[in-house]
Amino acid sequence: MKQLEETAGKIRSMEIRGAGRIARAAAAELRDYATRLGVDDISLFNEKMKHAAGILARTRPTAVSLPNAVRSVMRYKGDSIEEARADIVKLANKFISNSENAVKRIGEIGARRVRDGDTIMTHCNSSAAFSIMAEAHSQGKNISVIATESRPRLQGHLTVKQLDGFGIKTSLIVDSAVRYFMKDVDLVVVGADAVTANGSVINKIGTSQLALAASEARTNFIVAAETYKFSPTSILGELVEIEERDSGEVVSTVKHAEFPGVKVRNPAFDVTPREYVDLICTEVGAIPPEMAYIIIKDFLGWGIEEMNSAVRE
Amino acid sequence: MKQLEETAGKIRSMEIRGAGRIARAAAAELRDYATRLGVDDISLFNEKMKHAAGILARTRPTAVSLPNAVRSVMRYKGDSIEEARADIVKLANKFISNSENAVKRIGEIGARRVRDGDTIMTHCNSSAAFSIMAEAHSQGKNISVIATESRPRLQGHLTVKQLDGFGIKTSLIVDSAVRYFMKDVDLVVVGADAVTANGSVINKIGTSQLALAASEARTNFIVAAETYKFSPTSILGELVEIEERDSGEVVSTVKHAEFPGVKVRNPAFDVTPREYVDLICTEVGAIPPEMAYIIIKDFLGWGIEEMNSAVRE
Amino acid sequence: MKQLEETAGKIRSMEIRGAGRIARAAAAELRDYATRLGVDDISLFNEKMKHAAGILARTRPTAVSLPNAVRSVMRYKGDSIEEARADIVKLANKFISNSENAVKRIGEIGARRVRDGDTIMTHCNSSAAFSIMAEAHSQGKNISVIATESRPRLQGHLTVKQLDGFGIKTSLIVDSAVRYFMKDVDLVVVGADAVTANGSVINKIGTSQLALAASEARTNFIVAAETYKFSPTSILGELVEIEERDSGEVVSTVKHAEFPGVKVRNPAFDVTPREYVDLICTEVGAIPPEMAYIIIKDFLGWGIEEMNSAVRE
Amino acid sequence: MKQLEETAGKIRSMEIRGAGRIARAAAAELRDYATRLGVDDISLFNEKMKHAAGILARTRPTAVSLPNAVRSVMRYKGDSIEEARADIVKLANKFISNSENAVKRIGEIGARRVRDGDTIMTHCNSSAAFSIMAEAHSQGKNISVIATESRPRLQGHLTVKQLDGFGIKTSLIVDSAVRYFMKDVDLVVVGADAVTANGSVINKIGTSQLALAASEARTNFIVAAETYKFSPTSILGELVEIEERDSGEVVSTVKHAEFPGVKVRNPAFDVTPREYVDLICTEVGAIPPEMAYIIIKDFLGWGIEEMNSAVRE
Amino acid sequence: MKQLEETAGKIRSMEIRGAGRIARAAAAELRDYATRLGVDDISLFNEKMKHAAGILARTRPTAVSLPNAVRSVMRYKGDSIEEARADIVKLANKFISNSENAVKRIGEIGARRVRDGDTIMTHCNSSAAFSIMAEAHSQGKNISVIATESRPRLQGHLTVKQLDGFGIKTSLIVDSAVRYFMKDVDLVVVGADAVTANGSVINKIGTSQLALAASEARTNFIVAAETYKFSPTSILGELVEIEERDSGEVVSTVKHAEFPGVKVRNPAFDVTPREYVDLICTEVGAIPPEMAYIIIKDFLGWGIEEMNSAVRE
Amino acid sequence: MKQLEETAGKIRSMEIRGAGRIARAAAAELRDYATRLGVDDISLFNEKMKHAAGILARTRPTAVSLPNAVRSVMRYKGDSIEEARADIVKLANKFISNSENAVKRIGEIGARRVRDGDTIMTHCNSSAAFSIMAEAHSQGKNISVIATESRPRLQGHLTVKQLDGFGIKTSLIVDSAVRYFMKDVDLVVVGADAVTANGSVINKIGTSQLALAASEARTNFIVAAETYKFSPTSILGELVEIEERDSGEVVSTVKHAEFPGVKVRNPAFDVTPREYVDLICTEVGAIPPEMAYIIIKDFLGWGIEEMNSAVRE
Repeated sequence: MKQLEETAGKIRSMEIRGAGRIARAAAAELRDYATRLGVDDISLFNEKMKHAAGILARTRPTAVSLPNAVRSVMRYKGDSIEEARADIVKLANKFISNSENAVKRIGEIGARRVRDGDTIMTHCNSSAAFSIMAEAHSQGKNISVIATESRPRLQGHLTVKQLDGFGIKTSLIVDSAVRYFMKDVDLVVVGADAVTANGSVINKIGTSQLALAASEARTNFIVAAETYKFSPTSILGELVEIEERDSGEVVSTVKHAEFPGVKVRNPAFDVTPREYVDLICTEVGAIPPEMAYIIIKDFLGWGIEEMNSAVRE
Repeated sequence: MKQLEETAGKIRSMEIRGAGRIARAAAAELRDYATRLGVDDISLFNEKMKHAAGILARTRPTAVSLPNAVRSVMRYKGDSIEEARADIVKLANKFISNSENAVKRIGEIGARRVRDGDTIMTHCNSSAAFSIMAEAHSQGKNISVIATESRPRLQGHLTVKQLDGFGIKTSLIVDSAVRYFMKDVDLVVVGADAVTANGSVINKIGTSQLALAASEARTNFIVAAETYKFSPTSILGELVEIEERDSGEVVSTVKHAEFPGVKVRNPAFDVTPREYVDLICTEVGAIPPEMAYIIIKDFLGWGIEEMNSAVRE
Repeated sequence: MKQLEETAGKIRSMEIRGAGRIARAAAAELRDYATRLGVDDISLFNEKMKHAAGILARTRPTAVSLPNAVRSVMRYKGDSIEEARADIVKLANKFISNSENAVKRIGEIGARRVRDGDTIMTHCNSSAAFSIMAEAHSQGKNISVIATESRPRLQGHLTVKQLDGFGIKTSLIVDSAVRYFMKDVDLVVVGADAVTANGSVINKIGTSQLALAASEARTNFIVAAETYKFSPTSILGELVEIEERDSGEVVSTVKHAEFPGVKVRNPAFDVTPREYVDLICTEVGAIPPEMAYIIIKDFLGWGIEEMNSAVRE
Repeated sequence: MKQLEETAGKIRSMEIRGAGRIARAAAAELRDYATRLGVDDISLFNEKMKHAAGILARTRPTAVSLPNAVRSVMRYKGDSIEEARADIVKLANKFISNSENAVKRIGEIGARRVRDGDTIMTHCNSSAAFSIMAEAHSQGKNISVIATESRPRLQGHLTVKQLDGFGIKTSLIVDSAVRYFMKDVDLVVVGADAVTANGSVINKIGTSQLALAASEARTNFIVAAETYKFSPTSILGELVEIEERDSGEVVSTVKHAEFPGVKVRNPAFDVTPREYVDLICTEVGAIPPEMAYIIIKDFLGWGIEEMNSAVRE
Repeated sequence: MKQLEETAGKIRSMEIRGAGRIARAAAAELRDYATRLGVDDISLFNEKMKHAAGILARTRPTAVSLPNAVRSVMRYKGDSIEEARADIVKLANKFISNSENAVKRIGEIGARRVRDGDTIMTHCNSSAAFSIMAEAHSQGKNISVIATESRPRLQGHLTVKQLDGFGIKTSLIVDSAVRYFMKDVDLVVVGADAVTANGSVINKIGTSQLALAASEARTNFIVAAETYKFSPTSILGELVEIEERDSGEVVSTVKHAEFPGVKVRNPAFDVTPREYVDLICTEVGAIPPEMAYIIIKDFLGWGIEEMNSAVRE
Repeated sequence: MKQLEETAGKIRSMEIRGAGRIARAAAAELRDYATRLGVDDISLFNEKMKHAAGILARTRPTAVSLPNAVRSVMRYKGDSIEEARADIVKLANKFISNSENAVKRIGEIGARRVRDGDTIMTHCNSSAAFSIMAEAHSQGKNISVIATESRPRLQGHLTVKQLDGFGIKTSLIVDSAVRYFMKDVDLVVVGADAVTANGSVINKIGTSQLALAASEARTNFIVAAETYKFSPTSILGELVEIEERDSGEVVSTVKHAEFPGVKVRNPAFDVTPREYVDLICTEVGAIPPEMAYIIIKDFLGWGIEEMNSAVRE
């Protein structure tokens, strides 16, 4: 229990961070906990596992990947402790390996949508989106990328650095210039923080503006998202909470002192409706956003009952 | 001639800058030149005036307000030098006073479109747009304003400072958050750098994204523009050239060195098509964008012939 | 002056009512007042006329037709009282006769847009819209009309009665069924209470829903409006005030007592934006809504200065 | 058989009415019939059950909930009569209890989409839609509701009475005022009479106008629908028949006599296409309309074969 | 009179054909007729001119350019026959020379909208549209053109031949491939057979499909039209009649015999609504389609009264 | 093996052609091969079957129906050769019979969407689309059809011949006239060459223009497609390759010689995005395009793993 508490603590304190890393840590911890668990009775074993799962799931209530990881392991079956343990190990390892390979696999699938000569626009810094562009480039397709700077945190600088380092022709623009350049863009590729059951994409603030401008210009808009980004609780109506971050990200304290009455609003994400999304590229295939529930059900293994309890706990 | 050359020089070197100030300087210079002009023959007088007008008009070929100012004075009439001179003085003074009062008058007209309780979004820093918000506030209407920071030059900081200083409830957002907040906006008010004969609005990069998002959410979109911003040459097909500014505005040299292969694209303006503009507020009235030519013809006094020569010269 | 006061009183008390009738009464009164006016000095004459015009114009500040009628007469010219009086008589009579013939003329012009076999939808009860349908029918075109009942005051009953009496095949539907039937409609024809300088149409609540549904189904949408319905003050930004009428029109007092906490909202008009209007049929021609200002300037004779004073007075 | 005939008779004569009540009565009758059934042979038992199911299913051929109820029970399994009977009882009771709880559950799920301060628009009178608003209000969210009167039968009066009685701030408007108020609405919530396999929503006439106006203004549009409202036969191309009701609902006989040639058209429902629906709230989760088939397959248990026979019988 | 009758006969029999040629022939004939006219009385002169104008105008009632030509000459002024005759000669010659230069001038104006590297799509065979492309090419802009074959008469073959002969990179496609290629098109340029007062463009069947596909892809759509193509009678509601041409153009008699019951529908033109047209390039400037009435009034010289009589005659 | 090689050869050489026929030939060959296969060991049997399946699947790599047929048979199960063989026979026969009945079944399902009096538009020549129209006509529904000629290969001639022969009222139009007639069309019905996992429809060039024009006019757009047209590999991102066919189809060599520099572009298909498709009619039901993956999974039996291998092989 102590080790599990430690892992939980690291997730809570953000020592372990990032959607993928959190998810894999939780799955691994459940696996190891099951292995260590010295009880004789299968009922007791199951109860303890459930308790442990609850602790891990509650560490970061808004992280979409966490309940998906926990759920992936907890759908183990077994009449004896041995069987249960074996299944847990298998499920946890499968989740971890899938998760580790997801970005690479998304790259392979997504790169098929890129044609030689394409100009791609991207926003913020997404490893899954990068994987698609890098894979297309590696296949010898001659692409060029337009990346937004992505205020307020300027993650676009990181993106253009990576693309430049990889040898891809890249331009950097301010976020306001998205519509100006969109007419000459062939494909938009962005990542996702979460995907809801009705196909909405939650991603870095500004994403929905790219999608709107792409739709206006008949430009394809692709979202690169690992399956563990799909939110099971959204099917129960849960709204994805849009976090507002510190005003200091937008304007320095010194500057802000020049207009003290002004409120700085700094939402971190926005919601892109499904009608602006042509395709979501996951590691198990490229789906239309309306099929998000299939991913939640078939690949994440959530039934209605489990989702209900997940929400209620 | 020397003084005229001096004024021309100051406009050229941008010692005199800003659409309104340039225009008034040119009109005043033509007036003063006419007053000083020591010739006896009306034909010679007309010729010299035309020559002077040409010099002034060519100082800043892309400034829309300049040919409008020159044209306003040069449509003087007179059979004798005295008559011509008198008309020039009258026309120049009228242009100057109209121009000086334009922003105030736009405020009065535009404020009638603002209702008590409105949330207004604005972009960049426009004195005409500010005039509308300030006048509405002065009339006791309880408004609140959401201003974009307007990268790369952050003119939004200036805007929120002015609004805050004026006592208007104000929020500051990054440019990417425009669509996120648009659903709760009642009215968008922006300025213009130029308005073309087919009703397109040339303004700070990002304006067309506000307009697109406003249109998507059925939010009224108003442009505040002095009549001297209307481009007569656009009726002859002239495309408004979108200037690309220095990359240093977007990313510092030090930072750029981290991704040397990356090209920084920095267009200063974009073009908002007429279907996204509900109204253009000028000092002579609030018109639909499709009526831009009427302003050019009736208020700026351009006939087809004059526009032709203006383009050809 | 006494008679003028009487006429003003009748307009104020709504003894004289209806956009056309009000307008003609005011024009006639100004004419008769000028005829009766026993002064010798043209300046005094002009001043008295201006005073009289002001009294009439202020009787019903929101009636669009009133300032148009007054303006039509007050643009008289004349160096002597005789000349002025003669011009006034001419202008007043011309306005009155134009106004009386307007509906008939709109019928002739509008009927040209109706094709044999057309299904027309209409809303509320407009004599100008009726004139178009009646004229098309009289020309032997086989048309059928779908009329909304037009809650809350059920003016649709009056419309279907008139159409039925005229021998036109007619159906009556509830207002909610507009979109249901729109797919099979060839043309929508409605009237207008006012048209603004930017081409918006103010008409009976529900009109903008017809326009939206027509636009969705690529159905032509025609507005029938006499030129005196065009609002000159709207060019100065004036918003057309949407009157909310008595709740008793929507729900009887007895019924309302069953849900006393419920507020009844009863706006009389709504605003149809220009992008949903294909054509405005006036007695001087069929124009696109964006040309509304031309009607105001060329046919109603308003210059910017007059509009300014009209608003300020 | 007599009792079954009686129940069938009551459904046929509309003594038992309402989508939910009909469905539960049929399920209960099948259960009781199975319990009473005095046969020894399982084949005979099955045959008799099938016969009974057919009788009940045919009582109201257009009621969507009826075949869903019958199907829910008839997918029982069992090698012996005892097993079959037990399964029938279990399935019937589960269907009845799910159906009874559906409205409450929809309220819980739907209320998560309502934010504090929201203005909600609703149409007609739907218990499932009411459940969402009531639950949101009970959770302490400060909401206000705009309800249409819903001509011709004015079910909106019932709705505002219920909302008012529940302490929710409510306004009543005519159906024509939907677009007028839509700009200030945050969320539209309506019920459904039926949902088809391609995600179309059949509901009270006027619903599709709300949806169109919501879409124009970027307002979320939510449908509250119990799963038994989903039409399995629609996957086989079956068009949902739109019933036209009596003209007397629209205009009294006395009034109609004033325009005897006028036809009154009174369609009871209209069809809202899936692109205007953001979410369908069912008791098993909130889904995008495109997922309707999943509900039909996974929750109602219809396979292609069963649907085929259902249509052909 | 005999010579006038001859000219009228040649226009009627289509010996003289083509919008421009017809118009110039009529203007020249009126001029020559005035010169020959041996009468002494100015009233008689005017009457005879009016009679002659009527004969010419009636030769081809649906040709838009004809009444424009006649009107251009007939607005002559003069108190004596000498003055009248001189004005007629001046007006006729001006019309003829404007008309002859129109195509060249449209090329100059339109070419300013073409940017280096543009891919242009065109439809059918229009000399005004060709003029724009040729002028842009002559200025050294590197353009490439995609031309539709323009069934049924395959005028696209003529277009590609001209473009190819001029050295412009050209592709030929079937009309069905318009949307397929539109995503990569920068500008659409087409001609016009007529432009109506509300900005609709009547042109070769298929034009409205190009416009729709251009609008879907945010591609600019430019119409090249000489001012004499603007229809003055359309302001009076006149619908432009869409001629259906011989079925033999679509399918040979031999082929048609294989499916004798099949009706061949062969409309020659379609109507492109103003919302899909960005700009109309005329020889007097590039205007938004909503300004069509200004061309009719200011450049063609039609007042409401003249248009009325034109329609009624 | 020899016979299998022969069948493979016939498919490769297009002796056996057509999506349906290819598929049935492959299924039959696998069945017969299994029957002939003289091995004793089930592992060896499975291996040989897999090898045979690979040979057949690779004959026409772009034919969508081929992998579907092979997959349908290869999901056989069996612990012994007898069991396996029996299952293969059953699966192959089921696929063949389903495929043979598909067009008839699509007709029955699709005809339910056709209402008495409907005007239907169709494009190219599709047996599945024809089946819907023929079935509706056979049921006594009074329909009329507008068929495009479908350049360049004029398959529309074949379509109108079939419809005419069947006694259906038919018109033939050029492809450019689609938007002209769309306003009066009630329903568009077309076939499909392939349907992708995200609901895009690949069909004859021009189909997407019909869909766009239908969407603009709120006209329902139905695609008739056998399930074996659904592309399993598209879920892995695979783009459907659009073949460009010989220029001789568009313009004869003789004609082409008149403009030798002109490139003829002749894409055979285009892609219709899912937002323009109301329904896809398959033999197992009418689904929204977003459900394409369900067809691929539930009816074609592809799991993610199988699709992966299919793509990789």
